[in-house]
Amino acid sequence: MSRFNALDENRLEQLRDLAGASNVSTGQADLDLHAKDQSHHAARQPEVVIYATDTQQVARILQFANEACIPVTPWGVGTSLEGNPIPVHGGILLSFEKMTQIVKIHADDFQVTTQPGIGRKDLNVQLARHGLFFAPDPGANATIGGMLANNAAGIQTVKYGATKDNVVQMQVVLADGRILRLGSRSVKQSSGYNLMQLIVGSEGTLGVITEATLKLAPVPEHMSAVVAAFSTVTEAVEAVVAVRGCGIVPAALELLDTTAVTMLNTTGDVDLAPHPSIFMEFHAAHETSLTAELDLIREICKEIGAINIQATADPTERKRLWHARHALYENAVRQNPGKTFYVNDVAVPISAYPELIAYIEQQRDAHGMTAYLVGHAGDGNIHMAMPYEGETGYQNAQALNSEVVNKAIELNGTATGEHGVGLGKIPFMTHEHGDALIAMRQIKDLLDPNGILNPGKIFPEGM
Amino acid sequence: MSRFNALDENRLEQLRDLAGASNVSTGQADLDLHAKDQSHHAARQPEVVIYATDTQQVARILQFANEACIPVTPWGVGTSLEGNPIPVHGGILLSFEKMTQIVKIHADDFQVTTQPGIGRKDLNVQLARHGLFFAPDPGANATIGGMLANNAAGIQTVKYGATKDNVVQMQVVLADGRILRLGSRSVKQSSGYNLMQLIVGSEGTLGVITEATLKLAPVPEHMSAVVAAFSTVTEAVEAVVAVRGCGIVPAALELLDTTAVTMLNTTGDVDLAPHPSIFMEFHAAHETSLTAELDLIREICKEIGAINIQATADPTERKRLWHARHALYENAVRQNPGKTFYVNDVAVPISAYPELIAYIEQQRDAHGMTAYLVGHAGDGNIHMAMPYEGETGYQNAQALNSEVVNKAIELNGTATGEHGVGLGKIPFMTHEHGDALIAMRQIKDLLDPNGILNPGKIFPEGM
Repeated sequence: MSRFNALDENRLEQLRDLAGASNVSTGQADLDLHAKDQSHHAARQPEVVIYATDTQQVARILQFANEACIPVTPWGVGTSLEGNPIPVHGGILLSFEKMTQIVKIHADDFQVTTQPGIGRKDLNVQLARHGLFFAPDPGANATIGGMLANNAAGIQTVKYGATKDNVVQMQVVLADGRILRLGSRSVKQSSGYNLMQLIVGSEGTLGVITEATLKLAPVPEHMSAVVAAFSTVTEAVEAVVAVRGCGIVPAALELLDTTAVTMLNTTGDVDLAPHPSIFMEFHAAHETSLTAELDLIREICKEIGAINIQATADPTERKRLWHARHALYENAVRQNPGKTFYVNDVAVPISAYPELIAYIEQQRDAHGMTAYLVGHAGDGNIHMAMPYEGETGYQNAQALNSEVVNKAIELNGTATGEHGVGLGKIPFMTHEHGDALIAMRQIKDLLDPNGILNPGKIFPEGM
Repeated sequence: MSRFNALDENRLEQLRDLAGASNVSTGQADLDLHAKDQSHHAARQPEVVIYATDTQQVARILQFANEACIPVTPWGVGTSLEGNPIPVHGGILLSFEKMTQIVKIHADDFQVTTQPGIGRKDLNVQLARHGLFFAPDPGANATIGGMLANNAAGIQTVKYGATKDNVVQMQVVLADGRILRLGSRSVKQSSGYNLMQLIVGSEGTLGVITEATLKLAPVPEHMSAVVAAFSTVTEAVEAVVAVRGCGIVPAALELLDTTAVTMLNTTGDVDLAPHPSIFMEFHAAHETSLTAELDLIREICKEIGAINIQATADPTERKRLWHARHALYENAVRQNPGKTFYVNDVAVPISAYPELIAYIEQQRDAHGMTAYLVGHAGDGNIHMAMPYEGETGYQNAQALNSEVVNKAIELNGTATGEHGVGLGKIPFMTHEHGDALIAMRQIKDLLDPNGILNPGKIFPEGM
């Protein structure tokens, strides 16, 4: 039996009063639309979808839900990859679709204050006219609230950091309706406990973010791309270490394994050497700097034994090369018609990358599976995209996923570099965190004693 | 009456058993040495100094102190500036002087795992042979544990981040003796709550750090320095914004006001224009890049109306210029014999910097005081160094400090950018954090229910 109360008509009526009737929907289409993210995890419909309109309204809804013991699951736009916003216990799905306003662009401070429902791409369109952008790039047009809640990262993290590194202030509503302002607009802060970073990455289980002030970066004047192929993953990683050690900070530093590169050659508009390859992007304020950097990078790759190097500062050529990387998932889907994808996400210290990848390739072959490997190598983060079919296929994908996650943890890494725990990584939390997981649970129980916020996530059942 | 128990001979005997007799000292010299940091705050002796030797021993000491209700105040080397490690309630002073081992240098991962008692300068000597360094630079040879506890920052934060941005994993002992491993050696992590960042900057009030794995940066191949003088602070800040907006990330970006520059001219080995000046340092992997960057920076400063620009890539000349900045405090002390210094620390969004500085200058003159202004302008952080004498002088310094802190908070900034709350910033916590301070206190009470860890800090009395 559920420890939560159902949303009967009486409670729905109260919610209509609190949230505004036009913001409360029990329509089947709305429930369907908010039952599933982009992961392989099973859909589960909420009982009601409520559209958040402002902080005070969110506070009223939470206070009511807390007293009535009704689950509340915040929802950005559903691009997450571990079932993070699936309302597995039903209740209220709190959508931020209507809270998309940019509150203020602080151009001189390289900051923007925004509501959480705006998509990062939409935000960047507005910021572009100020020559600024919000750098974390998970690929999808994820909302800012979702990116903060999951601590999303992506391909530019090696230079610009993850979402957690690009926020200075947030407004957060706690389960009991308390409204907190966390952090300040100063980029440097050493004042009391860092509650902001406690909320970031907590996947909506500790509080609901209703406003955030983000750090921005100037749009780079000059960009270049390098793709270098190596005969082994070990050599490719050696190049990654050497590039990072030379003092040039790449804006992106990706590794694709031979399977992924070969697949791109058949489907993409590129002609890559069929070997483990690193894709790099560099941003510079000055063309002379860029050219000097490209020369140094080329030299480093050559020295380590690159089979093939393509380097370009030409925008069209750079875009063409990177398009192949960006379209990888799309192409993989096209090459595997009728199949579903299981996408894995682990991260390790960079020195453990070759061992991790060797292990993945070995286990993949042992299971007789297809898995495209693409990693944010600069951060030691890797994804396997595993196409599968039917129950057996799913079991296989899940088995390989488990093996790889446990291996990553044993290599002093983590079960998730950027997708969050959601539903899929719950089984690994004790292995990864040990007693720290108990302390996390204590904090959850302190801030959300009735457990209404996004229940069923992060912690194993019964903990 | 104190809510803590005194350390009678019986309890001391138990502590000798738990900690090792040679690690427990009640000698007057030891008590004296651990009664005061480098701030203006009054000394207070602990009842006993215990030297930590390993994590298990620390866990035993904390478990005992927790059950016996005896204060425990962790101590690095006492270079803090807000009274952070002064044992105001007596009890146990837990010194990390004996825990100075580097556990492992992970050169390929740009990481080091170390015990907390090592000084950052001593650490960097060891790292230099690997071409690496730990970038946060608060000036003093602070310990890593102290830097983590206070989230120390300093002049290179604009490029390399504060201490909080340069740690991936920590071992922490909670008040009840539980040992937690927080974070992982992966630089990217999105796995559960960020307890590590909750502990960083908590000034020893939530847990005791016994080991940390830090992020390192490659020692830059090429460095340059630029000093530019402007007729007003507003123009100087315009230059700061323009430099940051051009895409070149300076390694340091400091502002000195006219008072500070004039003082340096009389005492230092420099000939600076007696105007608000910005000191910049740039790190590059390539000499060509450096030259190109210097040209761009010079152009930007000229365009904004710089009166004087000194730019150099020559190591000797660069060191001479920066020596003036580094020796500022020392020179200020020499110019004010017999006086004590009250050093203030606030930070605001960079756009509010001119207003803050105008306010400081106005209030300083209203109080008829001397105050040298030196700021990490790239981060919106500023310090006033106020020489004072006698009780009236102290009252004046404190009054000016209060005015400036409240002004910084009103400008959406913070009471402390890098010195932490300690004793001095307690009165401003409610103004800065509002209800968030109550949530912080709830977390303190959860993790340290008997309040034994560094009592008397961060929170107002009775909260």
